Amino acid sequence: MSGPDTPLLDKVTYPADLRKLKPEQLTQFADELRSEVIDAVSVTGGHLGAGLGVVELTAAIHYVFDTPNDRLVWDVGHQCYPHKIITGRRDRIRTLRKGGGLSGFTKRSESEYDPFGAAHSSTSISAALGFAIANKLNDRPGRGIAVIGDGAMSAGMAYEAMNNAEAAGNRLVVILNDNDMSIAPPVGGLSAYLARIVSSREFLGIRQLARRVASKLPKALYDAARKTDEYARGMTMGGTLFEELGFYYVGPIDGHNMEHLIPVLENVRDAAEGPCLVHVVTEKGKGYKYAEEAADKYHGVAKFDVVSGKQDKGPGGGPPAYQNVFGETLARLANDDSRICAITAAMPSGTGVDKFARAHPDKAFDVGIAEQHGVTFAAGLAAQGMRPFCAIYSTFLQRAYDQVVHDVAIQNLPVRFAIDRAGLVGADGSTHAGSFDLTYLATLPNFVVMAPSDEAELAHMTLTAAQHDSGPIAFRYPRGSGTGIPIPGRLEALEIGKGRIVKQGSKVAILSLGARLTEAMKAADRLEAKGLSTTVVDLRFVKPLDEELIRRTLTSHEVAVTIEEAAVGGLGAHVLTLASDLGLTDAGLKIRTMRLPDRFQDQDKPELQYAEAGLDADGIVDTVLKALRHNSASVDSNIEEGARA
Amino acid sequence: MSGPDTPLLDKVTYPADLRKLKPEQLTQFADELRSEVIDAVSVTGGHLGAGLGVVELTAAIHYVFDTPNDRLVWDVGHQCYPHKIITGRRDRIRTLRKGGGLSGFTKRSESEYDPFGAAHSSTSISAALGFAIANKLNDRPGRGIAVIGDGAMSAGMAYEAMNNAEAAGNRLVVILNDNDMSIAPPVGGLSAYLARIVSSREFLGIRQLARRVASKLPKALYDAARKTDEYARGMTMGGTLFEELGFYYVGPIDGHNMEHLIPVLENVRDAAEGPCLVHVVTEKGKGYKYAEEAADKYHGVAKFDVVSGKQDKGPGGGPPAYQNVFGETLARLANDDSRICAITAAMPSGTGVDKFARAHPDKAFDVGIAEQHGVTFAAGLAAQGMRPFCAIYSTFLQRAYDQVVHDVAIQNLPVRFAIDRAGLVGADGSTHAGSFDLTYLATLPNFVVMAPSDEAELAHMTLTAAQHDSGPIAFRYPRGSGTGIPIPGRLEALEIGKGRIVKQGSKVAILSLGARLTEAMKAADRLEAKGLSTTVVDLRFVKPLDEELIRRTLTSHEVAVTIEEAAVGGLGAHVLTLASDLGLTDAGLKIRTMRLPDRFQDQDKPELQYAEAGLDADGIVDTVLKALRHNSASVDSNIEEGARA
Repeated sequence: MSGPDTPLLDKVTYPADLRKLKPEQLTQFADELRSEVIDAVSVTGGHLGAGLGVVELTAAIHYVFDTPNDRLVWDVGHQCYPHKIITGRRDRIRTLRKGGGLSGFTKRSESEYDPFGAAHSSTSISAALGFAIANKLNDRPGRGIAVIGDGAMSAGMAYEAMNNAEAAGNRLVVILNDNDMSIAPPVGGLSAYLARIVSSREFLGIRQLARRVASKLPKALYDAARKTDEYARGMTMGGTLFEELGFYYVGPIDGHNMEHLIPVLENVRDAAEGPCLVHVVTEKGKGYKYAEEAADKYHGVAKFDVVSGKQDKGPGGGPPAYQNVFGETLARLANDDSRICAITAAMPSGTGVDKFARAHPDKAFDVGIAEQHGVTFAAGLAAQGMRPFCAIYSTFLQRAYDQVVHDVAIQNLPVRFAIDRAGLVGADGSTHAGSFDLTYLATLPNFVVMAPSDEAELAHMTLTAAQHDSGPIAFRYPRGSGTGIPIPGRLEALEIGKGRIVKQGSKVAILSLGARLTEAMKAADRLEAKGLSTTVVDLRFVKPLDEELIRRTLTSHEVAVTIEEAAVGGLGAHVLTLASDLGLTDAGLKIRTMRLPDRFQDQDKPELQYAEAGLDADGIVDTVLKALRHNSASVDSNIEEGARA
Repeated sequence: MSGPDTPLLDKVTYPADLRKLKPEQLTQFADELRSEVIDAVSVTGGHLGAGLGVVELTAAIHYVFDTPNDRLVWDVGHQCYPHKIITGRRDRIRTLRKGGGLSGFTKRSESEYDPFGAAHSSTSISAALGFAIANKLNDRPGRGIAVIGDGAMSAGMAYEAMNNAEAAGNRLVVILNDNDMSIAPPVGGLSAYLARIVSSREFLGIRQLARRVASKLPKALYDAARKTDEYARGMTMGGTLFEELGFYYVGPIDGHNMEHLIPVLENVRDAAEGPCLVHVVTEKGKGYKYAEEAADKYHGVAKFDVVSGKQDKGPGGGPPAYQNVFGETLARLANDDSRICAITAAMPSGTGVDKFARAHPDKAFDVGIAEQHGVTFAAGLAAQGMRPFCAIYSTFLQRAYDQVVHDVAIQNLPVRFAIDRAGLVGADGSTHAGSFDLTYLATLPNFVVMAPSDEAELAHMTLTAAQHDSGPIAFRYPRGSGTGIPIPGRLEALEIGKGRIVKQGSKVAILSLGARLTEAMKAADRLEAKGLSTTVVDLRFVKPLDEELIRRTLTSHEVAVTIEEAAVGGLGAHVLTLASDLGLTDAGLKIRTMRLPDRFQDQDKPELQYAEAGLDADGIVDTVLKALRHNSASVDSNIEEGARA
């Protein structure tokens, strides 16, 4: 491998090796580590900016603290590439996010240096507190150390954890990595507060600082502060909010300066008398000019050329991404409907809400990493007559499940949920998969739940949702590009609870929901080629089900298969429940439900993930043929080859 | 009705009537309102202490603000009895929490003065923000006013909303009702912070106050503050934390003093230049000595005698509550297992964790109203080798669904979930029903999900969970008392995924999960009396299902019925999915699934709620008989009388 020249890094496989370096070597070490990160990500693609921002911090933490006995938890985890390189995984770092390779996040199964996996934001303080308390109860050494970004700090969960920090005593260290940028620009009061702290750095003189130090910090920190003006400046400004919640606040300090980081962290390690919050200021993308110049663009990158910074985004010009079809359609609808507004939780571009916001800036609300608030805020908007669209990824909507139930469903308020990244999502792996939304939404009274089979259907469903004022409605769609079908100029609202027959046959029926329709059509072709006349139904709705269409289809075909991009409890379960309610199984019903497997799938290309799950044309054909062959008189011997996902 | 003597209150049906009173009449009015609340709750039982604490505040808000155009949102809503009395519902106030009566919480369908329902904590600021923004967008008058307790303020959702408050400008008013007591004593950093603010009231002199006022508050408030020392004292202490998040902080003020409340609220109404947080200090149970003396006991009360304060708790001496069986069993197990610990989110007595805490105080953690943090904290404990039990009501676990998925299930960490209040819960109604847990948990890979059929089974399952170190495990059980079966001295761990045959028959099979077993046995008796030999199975596990037992049962009986205390997507759906996976439906399978109906049920006695849902012995017998009669050749004509819940 022709990577960068890294003589110091080459000596470090684990943190124990790092600790043999002299403090004055650490700056060079960090430079080498940064080069390695840039080179590796240029090959794999992935989250670049976040990792570059914490290169020095990563090295400093492992240098000062006793990892893995001190439990280091990286919030979100997408900044962990430098951490992986110096915790025994450098040899695999160029497999990041690939099938069979390293995860793009921390992962317990990869290393003892990853004591807690992450990917969703704002879990780190809670987990670190768990580690700290467990050690305290067992009278074992070992801290919990959370590294959390300023964006993640705006989520309620982080606040809940801070509110409970005192119990951990000095076993808890929270490092606030303030880079003023999560994925989108920061929003909200906390962000403004942090900005005020940072911007007020030069306002106080040394004597004032010394007084503050004396009144606020444990003795050893005070001594250190007195010794070095630089530390003193760094360690003592503001932070009242955190202090009021029970932390010793230390900061802000320059997160790219090893000569500041090391002694401050040593002080925290040796002298803190209670939970400490170290406020570190970093720059996302630090040290790579193309990333520094466009931090948002380099949040997640494709493979790129290190010298030119040019990303390899493929040929381009293909079908539009689902998110953009949604955002543009909503913007169009809002031109004629002043009640439409959109809510995103720190994902304006990922959800397409940026497209809407450009056309209707006063109607777009980025609430920050705050799905819970976002959903109930939308419920309030709906209760006051607006037509709010909550655009939240399937996996992140889990954060707001109680708000969906308690504030939206029970009150039957017409909040519209535009649920992106439904189903398997590729390189981000199991933590980002949108597997459970059909199940957790379709069980709720009052809800309408749809899934479009292509981007034109998505546009129609966006209109359908806009016009549905009688209760909550959700539509969920995949990550990635549509099928290439044109978006009609004139949209039509779908009839609630009505599916459509895409292809009429007579022997086999495939009941599809969502974007698996493409595979269902392929499977139908292959089945027809085998002489099996096949019907394909696009159900569109999992709730309410199209009872009449389903009854007719199930009773008029020899075998029926349902397919969905979701885990058990969704379409298949609801169709089976309906069939049994109607007594359709009484006299015999050959039906199989195809769904995601009962395990969490690792990252890979989406099409390979679906193939692994058996949810592709091959899988459908296979399921149909096995079902047709299945002789119910010999159940026992057939269990093994049954159609179980 | 022989209520208290209330001449002023008798003139007030709606807030418009209240506003005709002179300010100097308001203290007497509040006294009368308090008497009416005490008298009404003595008849109905319910949440007493919370309402008594906000009598003056309720009157003051409606006097000063333009309700219902100003949208008043009561957080949690259990303090809303005085509000209901003066918003057109006094004539029905003695039907509170009864079947067909007024809800014990705010409810949109009851009154335009309830613009947003509640019951779960900490939603009010988000909703009020929604109202405020909707009005702002439409250039209509009207504020959003949230009244939120200090306990509710500790939940992450409230913080997320505060972080977003600035967008509302002065249309948002948050009234922090600081009574230092949610249900249990307060915990955490925020609570300590508020206590410091309140306790420091007398520390500053008037001149200092005036300076602070001048520097911090809008001009009109400053003027008011200068005029009256009392207001000044009240309006200007501390509050930095809220100020840093973008609020004008006003407080603390005496929430039982009309002469303070009215002018301060008027100032906020007329002069605030941005979102305002008014910090009001109240006493839970204020004005009723038995409630004042024991605020926790009077949080939720039975009917009581007004003069003596004695509650009518019924004969007593019956079977123990499920929560206590859990708490006592866990305490017992922890005597021999130092790894066991317990987490509650502000519900120590409701979950039985108080019983555990008395025996093992260092192993019990009350995290406050912070289910999200609680679950991930437990995941951290588990990752460090502890055996944590998260004891959370079914409906509140919805708050932590993403943490259950992302931090527990994906990482396969052995967190134990003791889920109380599963199924229908009686007087608290739909917001507290635990209807969805089977569905939202059983869809998750790695999870084991159980439900005990009685309190002895609960004890066995507690042990089973303690010993299950290979992944997450949950057991869910009802509100209320067990069946009276003795708890064995020696507990036995159940085999994971194995059900038990409670009664062997041959023609009809009832597959029961959880506490519906009692009704299943009654139904079996009635079916036997009709000559239908009936098997009753207690499945114990919904995940993993007892595949062998289910296969055998389904294939050897003429009709099978599943029953569960849960919504669609749980046991019935999983049994049907298994049956179809195995091809059991191919040659005919008469199976019906009995589950909660597809609607939210209002409060009533639990047995009446279950009867309404058709989930009692009558319903089972009915479902079996209809299924037996059902002729699949005439499906169409039978749909109407099908077994659909």
